[in-house]
Amino acid sequence: MSPTPRSTPTRYRHRARSDRAVLDAVLDAGFLCHLGVVIDGAPLVVPTIYGRDGDTLYLHGSTGSGNLRAASTGGVSVSVTHVDGIVYARAAMHLSINFRSAVIHGRPTTVTDPDEQLRAMRIVVDNVTPGAWPAVRQPTKKELAGTLVLALDLTEASVKVREGGPIDEPEDVAVGGVWAGVLPLRQLWDAPVPADDLEPGVPVPDHVLARIAGSPVAG
Amino acid sequence: MSPTPRSTPTRYRHRARSDRAVLDAVLDAGFLCHLGVVIDGAPLVVPTIYGRDGDTLYLHGSTGSGNLRAASTGGVSVSVTHVDGIVYARAAMHLSINFRSAVIHGRPTTVTDPDEQLRAMRIVVDNVTPGAWPAVRQPTKKELAGTLVLALDLTEASVKVREGGPIDEPEDVAVGGVWAGVLPLRQLWDAPVPADDLEPGVPVPDHVLARIAGSPVAG
Repeated sequence: MSPTPRSTPTRYRHRARSDRAVLDAVLDAGFLCHLGVVIDGAPLVVPTIYGRDGDTLYLHGSTGSGNLRAASTGGVSVSVTHVDGIVYARAAMHLSINFRSAVIHGRPTTVTDPDEQLRAMRIVVDNVTPGAWPAVRQPTKKELAGTLVLALDLTEASVKVREGGPIDEPEDVAVGGVWAGVLPLRQLWDAPVPADDLEPGVPVPDHVLARIAGSPVAG
Repeated sequence: MSPTPRSTPTRYRHRARSDRAVLDAVLDAGFLCHLGVVIDGAPLVVPTIYGRDGDTLYLHGSTGSGNLRAASTGGVSVSVTHVDGIVYARAAMHLSINFRSAVIHGRPTTVTDPDEQLRAMRIVVDNVTPGAWPAVRQPTKKELAGTLVLALDLTEASVKVREGGPIDEPEDVAVGGVWAGVLPLRQLWDAPVPADDLEPGVPVPDHVLARIAGSPVAG
């Protein structure tokens, strides 16, 4: 990562992580980001899915999406956050949350080469639905033509992690009697629900079973 | 809600909800939002906590936070998203996620009256750590002076909900053999972890136990 003023935290510096591996881990633990763009001078933040390949974050959506078109012509900010727990402290000001957060800044480029576009879409699909790509019908030329794929370089990014218990004032700890600690929060898959129009006899595929069996994901 | 052009979806209109109760439900199901501001013409999206009281969303943070200062002087976009599951379809283009999403646009006002500031902070605390406020040490005047509290009107907002199974092309369904359905995702509290500096004999309070016993939250 190459720090710039806007990617360098000015507050809570101890929560900042400059290790590129931590950025990758935060991104790879999720599939939903919040994409910020500027439209008519005002900010707009929308949720969207993503995938990462090396130093590039891929986003895609309909060519009819105003948000994605704005992202393709201007700067963006992409934020990925996982909440790991609630931090109960002895003072209102120290109540907090444990989290892992990545914020990426940059100007995405539009992926125009059809092969590269297809590859990028697969990277997003592999992140959101790992293992599904080989099983499903591939995008048609018409579907690809209606899809805008953006590539965002991960160079300008900041990562923050808050973990562990509350950090209280010594005088608040000394008073005693107030419970303090962390209530951990995690995500869990429930049993898969077959589609109403699924024909009988089609088993839940291994890639879905593996997902359920694997460690709970962060979203 | 009073629709404006930017709060009126142009795509996937069937996923839009204009019922104010749905907006409130999406906001009240979570405590983390992604706040978008414009700084030097570029978007910045950061995660932060919030609380709702009637028609107002409250945010707070340090007066030293450049993001919050930008929010207090310009427009903001606040996005709250809950992911409810992964939608497995028969075609790559129809793989999707089930979600509930609210996006609010507006210009927050800075809460300057000390009583109102304290009330707003309690609303945020009550949302993030319900029941904790009466148990913890209240903010001091110095702590309040270092806290910037913003109030954002909920009038200009859009809500989208995607639920249910995949929506595939009839010809893809006809091919058969590909599993389709939803893999539900939810959040779960784990057992509370006492702070290292918690003195022996302080039980986990009822408000934390009630949270664990309650229905799983969306974050």
